[in-house]
Amino acid sequence: MRILMSGYGTVGRGFAEVLEKRSKFLEERFGKENLPRIVCVMDSKTVARDPAGLDMKALEERKLRTGKVGDESYSDSVAVIDSVGFDLLVEVSPTDIKDGGAGLRNIRRALERGKDVITVNKGPLALCFGELIDLAVENECKLKFEGSVGGAMPIINLCHNNLAGENIRSIKGIFNGTCNYILSKMDNGQPFEQALKEAQQRGYAETDPTNDIEGFDAAAKVTILANSVFHRNVTIRDVRITGISSITPDAIALAASRNMVIRLIGEVSETKLEVSPRLVPKGHPLAIGGTINTAMIDADLAGPITVYGRGAGRIETASAILGDLLSVMDDRIGKKHSK
Amino acid sequence: MRILMSGYGTVGRGFAEVLEKRSKFLEERFGKENLPRIVCVMDSKTVARDPAGLDMKALEERKLRTGKVGDESYSDSVAVIDSVGFDLLVEVSPTDIKDGGAGLRNIRRALERGKDVITVNKGPLALCFGELIDLAVENECKLKFEGSVGGAMPIINLCHNNLAGENIRSIKGIFNGTCNYILSKMDNGQPFEQALKEAQQRGYAETDPTNDIEGFDAAAKVTILANSVFHRNVTIRDVRITGISSITPDAIALAASRNMVIRLIGEVSETKLEVSPRLVPKGHPLAIGGTINTAMIDADLAGPITVYGRGAGRIETASAILGDLLSVMDDRIGKKHSK
Repeated sequence: MRILMSGYGTVGRGFAEVLEKRSKFLEERFGKENLPRIVCVMDSKTVARDPAGLDMKALEERKLRTGKVGDESYSDSVAVIDSVGFDLLVEVSPTDIKDGGAGLRNIRRALERGKDVITVNKGPLALCFGELIDLAVENECKLKFEGSVGGAMPIINLCHNNLAGENIRSIKGIFNGTCNYILSKMDNGQPFEQALKEAQQRGYAETDPTNDIEGFDAAAKVTILANSVFHRNVTIRDVRITGISSITPDAIALAASRNMVIRLIGEVSETKLEVSPRLVPKGHPLAIGGTINTAMIDADLAGPITVYGRGAGRIETASAILGDLLSVMDDRIGKKHSK
Repeated sequence: MRILMSGYGTVGRGFAEVLEKRSKFLEERFGKENLPRIVCVMDSKTVARDPAGLDMKALEERKLRTGKVGDESYSDSVAVIDSVGFDLLVEVSPTDIKDGGAGLRNIRRALERGKDVITVNKGPLALCFGELIDLAVENECKLKFEGSVGGAMPIINLCHNNLAGENIRSIKGIFNGTCNYILSKMDNGQPFEQALKEAQQRGYAETDPTNDIEGFDAAAKVTILANSVFHRNVTIRDVRITGISSITPDAIALAASRNMVIRLIGEVSETKLEVSPRLVPKGHPLAIGGTINTAMIDADLAGPITVYGRGAGRIETASAILGDLLSVMDDRIGKKHSK
């Protein structure tokens, strides 16, 4: 299983680390001859390649020392993809929710070539889901994206596999840990600006926090759920989005006086597609504090199912990629030791 | 896909209803020729059979009118199993956690004959898990039991499939809705006896509530998790069990004065196997009230993942059987329309 990895930031590094950590497990499950090996890594400007499998420790050292994964620079990532022999693209380049960026071009190209794709890149999925799924079906390959919604919180594959027989009526959830952290701090009396600053200091929020606090990140996630779970054909532009930047301490205090909190809730169903701050009663499953993500799935037979998990983090997001990798390899190779 | 159903109580009826509700979905997924049909149903004394597929509406009417599923009586369920041509046993006879009862004999026999088995019967799994899994592996058939732990709450297949790459360090949870209902009522000042009576009136507790309130039901479930998720080789006799019948209003009040509640917690890890009442801080994921089940999974890469779902109920438990059925049929037949 030859892996081409486009993107070598936090998540890409985490994934390389997870592959190394699980090498024995993977060998037991699929056999030494099928061990996944990373044959090509692209960062934003350079590429490293070795058909026999890259030495990822050496690559990491080089990246730390020089800021580049390799000596070979490139201008067109699609041309790189076309020049590499691989079985699976792991697309972990930065999310671009304006036009999908290189991630979209990479995924499109890999699928056109009949290669399986695992991604946590929300941009391509929130903009061109239908096109990409059609490409995957046409070329008989897999497109997996568990980590794109809720990080390590199980949601996509849970709905697709475990709940395959359910009619899912709606999913409501907290899909942005940064906003939830800020709102929880505001519950304790902090004004918005101060809570945001603390989120930035702790590394939860970017220097430019727009995508988080204006609700775009959560909107990308509900868009992915709308397409993948509800089989709708929508893009992020179809989401009714209200962010949290105009939430005042007064609004928080008023909510508290009624035993409520304000949370940024994403909701998706056959007819709904919305991200907005809402009043939630204290003690309600969606009234959680901190950076955890949560989703309440309303299923017609099973009833309500709620999941909580870490929505971000290097190893956590990589763990979702590992889950998708196992699923792809189970299908392609089969487990050696199945029970 | 010919189904033999042993047991025709609440869950069996629910499953027949769910199969009917999902007939169009199943036809689209697997094709008309592969539609599951129930070719044999056993209740405790009689059997109904039709190789072409039983008319389940007529069977239900007969059961309501006469108390029997058929005119043919039997004494040995294994002999019935041997006389029927089928592909899948759905074992939903009543749980017997003393010696496994007919359910154990039925499952054993079906696996010996190389037939797939789906069960929600905790007795056989809590007593003879290792033997049954070995039989399944030896005879190359599936043994699925999602509904045996937590009803519609996803847990077994979640750990086996979605979290297949994780080292799961522990699972702690609320696995008995009856106890949780009683303890939540006691939080509001009701004494144990009165809370139990109310649980019985609402149909949450049996006339003989021993299995629930003494912790045996929860113990069977942690045993199943110990064997299936942690690959231990244990039976219900290995569980340290303390029930809730000796919890006093004073203990509840003392806990409340420290901002805690008392909950019956099952815990399982590589070294732990326990069911006992524990102090849980209010606001903690395990401090929930009502009849919901919950499990906190501590995974080494993903971090903590918590799930909530309905732990019992006719259609809810049947929905877990449907999930297992889809998984078995996906493996055996393949989806016609896969994405």
